[in-house]
Amino acid sequence: MKVIKFGGSSLASAQQLIKVKDIVKSDPTRRFVVVSAPGKRDNDDIKVTDALIKYYKAYTSDQDVSEIQDWIIRRYQSIIDELNLGSKILSKISDSIKKLATEPIEDNDFLYDTFLAAGEDNNAKLIAEYFTKSGVPARYIHPKKAGMFVTSEPGNARIIPSSYDKLEALREYEEVLVIPGFFGVTVDNQICTFSRGGSDITGSIVAAGVKADLYENFTDVDGIFAAHPGVVHKPHSISELTYKEMRELAYAGFSVLHDEALIPAYRGRIPLVIKNTNNPEHPGTKIVLSHEGPQLPVVGIAGDDKFVSINISKYLMNREVGFGRKVLQILEDLHIRWEHMPTGIDDMSIVIRERELTPIKEQEIISQLTRKLEVDEVSIQRGLSIIMLVGENMKSHIGVTAAATKALSERDINLVMISQGSSEVSVMFVIETEQEKKAVRALYKEFFTESSD
Amino acid sequence: MKVIKFGGSSLASAQQLIKVKDIVKSDPTRRFVVVSAPGKRDNDDIKVTDALIKYYKAYTSDQDVSEIQDWIIRRYQSIIDELNLGSKILSKISDSIKKLATEPIEDNDFLYDTFLAAGEDNNAKLIAEYFTKSGVPARYIHPKKAGMFVTSEPGNARIIPSSYDKLEALREYEEVLVIPGFFGVTVDNQICTFSRGGSDITGSIVAAGVKADLYENFTDVDGIFAAHPGVVHKPHSISELTYKEMRELAYAGFSVLHDEALIPAYRGRIPLVIKNTNNPEHPGTKIVLSHEGPQLPVVGIAGDDKFVSINISKYLMNREVGFGRKVLQILEDLHIRWEHMPTGIDDMSIVIRERELTPIKEQEIISQLTRKLEVDEVSIQRGLSIIMLVGENMKSHIGVTAAATKALSERDINLVMISQGSSEVSVMFVIETEQEKKAVRALYKEFFTESSD
Repeated sequence: MKVIKFGGSSLASAQQLIKVKDIVKSDPTRRFVVVSAPGKRDNDDIKVTDALIKYYKAYTSDQDVSEIQDWIIRRYQSIIDELNLGSKILSKISDSIKKLATEPIEDNDFLYDTFLAAGEDNNAKLIAEYFTKSGVPARYIHPKKAGMFVTSEPGNARIIPSSYDKLEALREYEEVLVIPGFFGVTVDNQICTFSRGGSDITGSIVAAGVKADLYENFTDVDGIFAAHPGVVHKPHSISELTYKEMRELAYAGFSVLHDEALIPAYRGRIPLVIKNTNNPEHPGTKIVLSHEGPQLPVVGIAGDDKFVSINISKYLMNREVGFGRKVLQILEDLHIRWEHMPTGIDDMSIVIRERELTPIKEQEIISQLTRKLEVDEVSIQRGLSIIMLVGENMKSHIGVTAAATKALSERDINLVMISQGSSEVSVMFVIETEQEKKAVRALYKEFFTESSD
Repeated sequence: MKVIKFGGSSLASAQQLIKVKDIVKSDPTRRFVVVSAPGKRDNDDIKVTDALIKYYKAYTSDQDVSEIQDWIIRRYQSIIDELNLGSKILSKISDSIKKLATEPIEDNDFLYDTFLAAGEDNNAKLIAEYFTKSGVPARYIHPKKAGMFVTSEPGNARIIPSSYDKLEALREYEEVLVIPGFFGVTVDNQICTFSRGGSDITGSIVAAGVKADLYENFTDVDGIFAAHPGVVHKPHSISELTYKEMRELAYAGFSVLHDEALIPAYRGRIPLVIKNTNNPEHPGTKIVLSHEGPQLPVVGIAGDDKFVSINISKYLMNREVGFGRKVLQILEDLHIRWEHMPTGIDDMSIVIRERELTPIKEQEIISQLTRKLEVDEVSIQRGLSIIMLVGENMKSHIGVTAAATKALSERDINLVMISQGSSEVSVMFVIETEQEKKAVRALYKEFFTESSD
């Protein structure tokens, strides 16, 4: 059995829904379909979710809501008309949209979530209707009926572990089940949405719950590229990634899927594939627990900017028990999240994201390091980028780091820091941001192409 | 003004003392001479300090002490006779050695220190006498008279900061001052010794106190080699090192001077030179605050074994605020000193010295990481070595790391970890110990010799 999730751009129009239906129809093991709200049809379009935000604002500020209500209903109607689904489903959706403007405003922590979730919820109803009409018997399932119970944290719901057992019962249905993504229901029967990447989370949870053989995540790209297409000309797409590799790439700027969304699938040991609704024949990128066949040593190269390094030196630092822990404590007390901490003998650097370091926090760090830890020197280095060379198979290929550092040095790229831990899933290079693109291109050329300069 | 310190092997015989006198005489700015106890004359000899330990043990266990007393006195006598210093100095030293066996044993925390210090103290008297007789007017100064006041920590004395002002007054003497190394005096007038490297510490303190232009440390080698002579055939000696570079090399197994001994000189900004009593024309190795002239990118290569890595992985580790700090807290609570902590995204390694990890502590770490921090995996990797490639000028030479990793990969040496911080004083490679010598040789060849394999 497969869980298949479609993103907003895959569901934006009748034309897209036809592709979606064909995809589902072509494989009878595609039994659970998780859907987003209709996305943009073109660059000037508005997402249904964004229209719902506008609707919520108008409603809560006591403005006239009829215009935005109409816009949203017409958005669904245009799809319904093109697909000839009839008036019954339209009036169902229309009622649902209008009913939002009767929800209580006062003391309602879940109002915003309820408005937003309507985008996915109504789209699921529409799609189930369309599937059934076009010969794919389907059933819409509300998350409450599915058993998707979540914590009472508006905008940041987390699944309640006992939900997985309830979700498993969905295997018993004979029809294709269409499940709206992005939200669950609290024990008090309130609609509560997940954080960013919401429909991906739903798909991941359903996949784990029904113990799917595969979680198919359909987007509008042919999978994950080995390097950013904006930096490298026509990078090849990756056929297989491990969850670990995916995490390392996501960290340094790759953002096809929100990585937290993958936790349920990862913990449930469900393999995942990222595919393209507009090009379903392309095998896409498979995300697995571990590689099976032979692999290139490097699967991808990611680069991300806006990093800062706090450089500390103190004579005999490494003799001082607890020094590193005290430095991290200072950061923690200031709610600063750190990323890396390469250490020398008498010096250490702490790499953090620029947004973590407000001028006030910067001053406080310097003051505490100087006063409490009596460091000899502390300096802040800005304008840094991280380049991650990712691949679980690097460990069985001696010389990957050598080839990488050589490729960088030949292009006069100065390595501010390097870190390669024993896991050997990745090598991290810290360089100056102005050299980032050059570095990614150099590494791509080194590990993926054979051609000359 | 220069402070000049001689180690035990430079003071083991009359023949050696003649060299020492010539060295002091040849430069009138050599005004402060810090001396160790007489060392071994050959491999089968006994150091005076070791004889004093034997003497202490006999005395405190109520055995006959006359034999060992005689041995020690005869040891000084043989030098006195060869140098024709006469009976007055001999009886002074003889009285001092015998007097030790009248010190109170009960409730005397400083007895062991008092016995040990006698080796340096009597040697200083002897040397001052010899210098004066051979035309170098000299004066023996006891640390108490010099103003060398220390904390009451037997075997681990630390200088009391106000001592530096008192020491500065030593500049006023016209004679060469001969100061016994290794010990100071507490405010309660007790003899208290420094930790290992004791005479080096005295020299370093005196150099800082008298604001010397140079601290000359005479040993029995031509300075510090760029790699260990037991690994690399005839390594060249380093002409100039910074204190930072010295620390990095000392960390990974270079042990010419005990690095804590250098703190006073470092803090006092006094340059230091390591020279050979048996080859005083050799310029030796100068240790400076910062390089002035042009330098090779790499000054030295050190390797040290007996390291262990604790490898931890946890999905989404880097999202967890305080994770690294909690790991370090676990180690700190178990009194484990860590060395390095390279981090990936979802994994980190902690490198520690093998002696820190008893089987019980290992079990405790694994249990706490699993239970308290809920890590996905934890493993212990043994048999690791650290290789440090050291040189402050690496930062202005792009490609040092590339050349190093290439040299290692060409010899099939697998890099378990790499760490290079922003200070760029060193690059650290963690490799398997069985490849350590091969790695040091490969790097030496890469950075110091031009010849082919």
